[in-house]
Amino acid sequence: MSSPLRLGIAGLGTVGIGVVKIVQKHAGLLAMRSGREVAITAVSARDRMKNRDADLSAYRWEDDPMAVATADDVDLYVELIGGDNGIARDSIQAALRAGKDVVTANKALLAMHGQDLALLAEDLGRVIRFEAAVAGGIPVIKTMTESLAGNDIGRVMGVMNGTCNYILTRMESAGLPYEAVFEEARQLGYLEADPQLDVGGIDASHKLAILSAIAFGTQVDFDAVEIEGIERVSIDDIRRAADMGYRIKLLGVAQMTARGLEQRMSPCLVPADSPLGQLVGGTNMVVLEGDSVGQIVLRGAGAGEGPTASAVLSDIVEIARGVRMAMFGQPASRLKTARPARTAVPAAYYMRLELQDKPGALAKVASVLGDAGISIDRMRQYGQHSDTSVPVLVVTHKTTPEAIDYAIQTLPRTGVLVSDPVELRIEEV
Amino acid sequence: MSSPLRLGIAGLGTVGIGVVKIVQKHAGLLAMRSGREVAITAVSARDRMKNRDADLSAYRWEDDPMAVATADDVDLYVELIGGDNGIARDSIQAALRAGKDVVTANKALLAMHGQDLALLAEDLGRVIRFEAAVAGGIPVIKTMTESLAGNDIGRVMGVMNGTCNYILTRMESAGLPYEAVFEEARQLGYLEADPQLDVGGIDASHKLAILSAIAFGTQVDFDAVEIEGIERVSIDDIRRAADMGYRIKLLGVAQMTARGLEQRMSPCLVPADSPLGQLVGGTNMVVLEGDSVGQIVLRGAGAGEGPTASAVLSDIVEIARGVRMAMFGQPASRLKTARPARTAVPAAYYMRLELQDKPGALAKVASVLGDAGISIDRMRQYGQHSDTSVPVLVVTHKTTPEAIDYAIQTLPRTGVLVSDPVELRIEEV
Repeated sequence: MSSPLRLGIAGLGTVGIGVVKIVQKHAGLLAMRSGREVAITAVSARDRMKNRDADLSAYRWEDDPMAVATADDVDLYVELIGGDNGIARDSIQAALRAGKDVVTANKALLAMHGQDLALLAEDLGRVIRFEAAVAGGIPVIKTMTESLAGNDIGRVMGVMNGTCNYILTRMESAGLPYEAVFEEARQLGYLEADPQLDVGGIDASHKLAILSAIAFGTQVDFDAVEIEGIERVSIDDIRRAADMGYRIKLLGVAQMTARGLEQRMSPCLVPADSPLGQLVGGTNMVVLEGDSVGQIVLRGAGAGEGPTASAVLSDIVEIARGVRMAMFGQPASRLKTARPARTAVPAAYYMRLELQDKPGALAKVASVLGDAGISIDRMRQYGQHSDTSVPVLVVTHKTTPEAIDYAIQTLPRTGVLVSDPVELRIEEV
Repeated sequence: MSSPLRLGIAGLGTVGIGVVKIVQKHAGLLAMRSGREVAITAVSARDRMKNRDADLSAYRWEDDPMAVATADDVDLYVELIGGDNGIARDSIQAALRAGKDVVTANKALLAMHGQDLALLAEDLGRVIRFEAAVAGGIPVIKTMTESLAGNDIGRVMGVMNGTCNYILTRMESAGLPYEAVFEEARQLGYLEADPQLDVGGIDASHKLAILSAIAFGTQVDFDAVEIEGIERVSIDDIRRAADMGYRIKLLGVAQMTARGLEQRMSPCLVPADSPLGQLVGGTNMVVLEGDSVGQIVLRGAGAGEGPTASAVLSDIVEIARGVRMAMFGQPASRLKTARPARTAVPAAYYMRLELQDKPGALAKVASVLGDAGISIDRMRQYGQHSDTSVPVLVVTHKTTPEAIDYAIQTLPRTGVLVSDPVELRIEEV
């Protein structure tokens, strides 16, 4: 057997402690599978005195993550601090310069600075792995960089924020409005300190931008993701969508088109009986489409101590085995600049319109849709919603986002709507 | 860039031609992702004159696969001949001895001789990869050996024969009996030359035995798989199961218990709304359960030119990148002898009984079940099935396979059954 692989771990939150526990519990299994012992030598976190659910007494404590990152007795620096800048970034750079490989779960950092870090690692002949950064325990990075290496990837989709999926699922099952379930989620500790990271779609978009880079051989371009969170998803829409056979998911889609790379994160309708539609609670799902393999669906826990630590361990074992992979599946210096494109791929759309209950209202709506070149697949008018309005649901045939924008801007001018029209894309899955 | 990786391909059926096409179509992509060119130098198949859907003129033709396996200008031998013995095995051994690495899609060979081949490869410092041997384009080998390396795996399940799943799905959707759909499948070319490989569960069991070895660190033990095919699945049972909220799947399950390793391949009921229950047509699914990661579900095409060739290419690219993995995720010399155990894990069971339509019949059945220690979760008696019998469905609470065996043997002795009782396990998924 080779010499042990010596880990330095910075960040001892849920994931960090999960990693420590696996290294302790499965020392034999890891050694067998790695061909060498995997040992922790040093750890660091903000508060040494905090009560943690693991025995850390055998490891050297460092107050400063930089000391772990650059220690002589550390071969592999495991960054689990988080944050898209500051000490997480500094310590990774220092570790690379000190000749260490790096494993991180930090999606925000990779979404903002992944390209620079990949270039630095390559210059220095070091490796950065990050399976845990996207979709927790689901092996999506490995599947894309390795299993689909023989494929031209056309589209990547995913439900990659468990908190949002929990909220949407719970709204449907309990019939509760967004605000109530948001408050539940907060009390259950499901939300980030800044809830916008979750419900605003930021966290999921970090992950999508990373997947795009691998899928299309382009530099990570987080700023180009069209992001919409779940705040405007109403219980009404969830119910109406269900009536029509759909569920609403916060869905990320990255797709290479002739016009450029489309990246969008938004609440979408998907068929209730599709794998994505069946996904409930905090579970994540990633759908990958390759020209040879067809569609691959991966499903599992997207967060939590065990699943995320499992992903970190898979990276650690790969490095212990001597596997040296380019960060995004090919040399960072060869990644193309992404040419971002606004969403133009046609899709069916769902629209909910609250109309005045008077003759001719529907005719005016139909006329606007006709002018926009939108043809209607299905329409349902419900009984009166309030004293003065009736809800009308429209599912369109495939049409362009531009046509939908035109309709949404024009409809209020008909004077027959009692509230702003709602539209949601029906992503073809 | 390093020197090209030179492939020799033996076997130019669907998968072999698929591999040739990808190497030709994606030469640039493969070079970028591998860090070196991937080039075919020699090919071999039974009939040189056969019209194939690819231009092979640039490659040296060998009538004898052994010549490809041992050629000086071949670095990697790609065995796509098939068969659990003979030239497939001989040529792989010859390739290893000649210093080549090997990629194969040959599940039958690995199920029968995987351990010997792994030992030989290890002795010689060579690598054998086989992602395409199990579940086509689904990256199950890589996920188990690499992504779950930090997990103690408890159970592996899968629907891994697309033809059987097609037959069962089609029986339900078209309301046709087994024999009719079997004949359809034959005419569509979905069946192996020996259909028992498919409908008898042999092919799927080959795959299950390979997954067991990786999951539990045991030597491949195909002979210990308890195998039952789909021939006795009747359209009656498919309909009745659907009434109760279930679908019938040919499900493979490998599970480590205190008594030993259980491996079973059999028609099982699974909830219709579970990922496995939702699986229709030729699609495959593998479910992996690890102590840290929880449940991971992988879904995709289990066969066909593109998906299977995609899996072969993933192995080729890994070898081109210089990745050297032990065949079953750990040294073959360290794999334990599997201690096989007959299925003893309790489960709920489905029973269909055709009873004489006379007073006291049901009481006698209930009495036998009671004697066997089986308690009933749900029971349904239907209207008369024929002039003389009524179908009775039973879903039991969790019970042991032994109790079910006792009941099945004892029930006919009551004299109230007009045909043999049917039982199917309801696997907890």
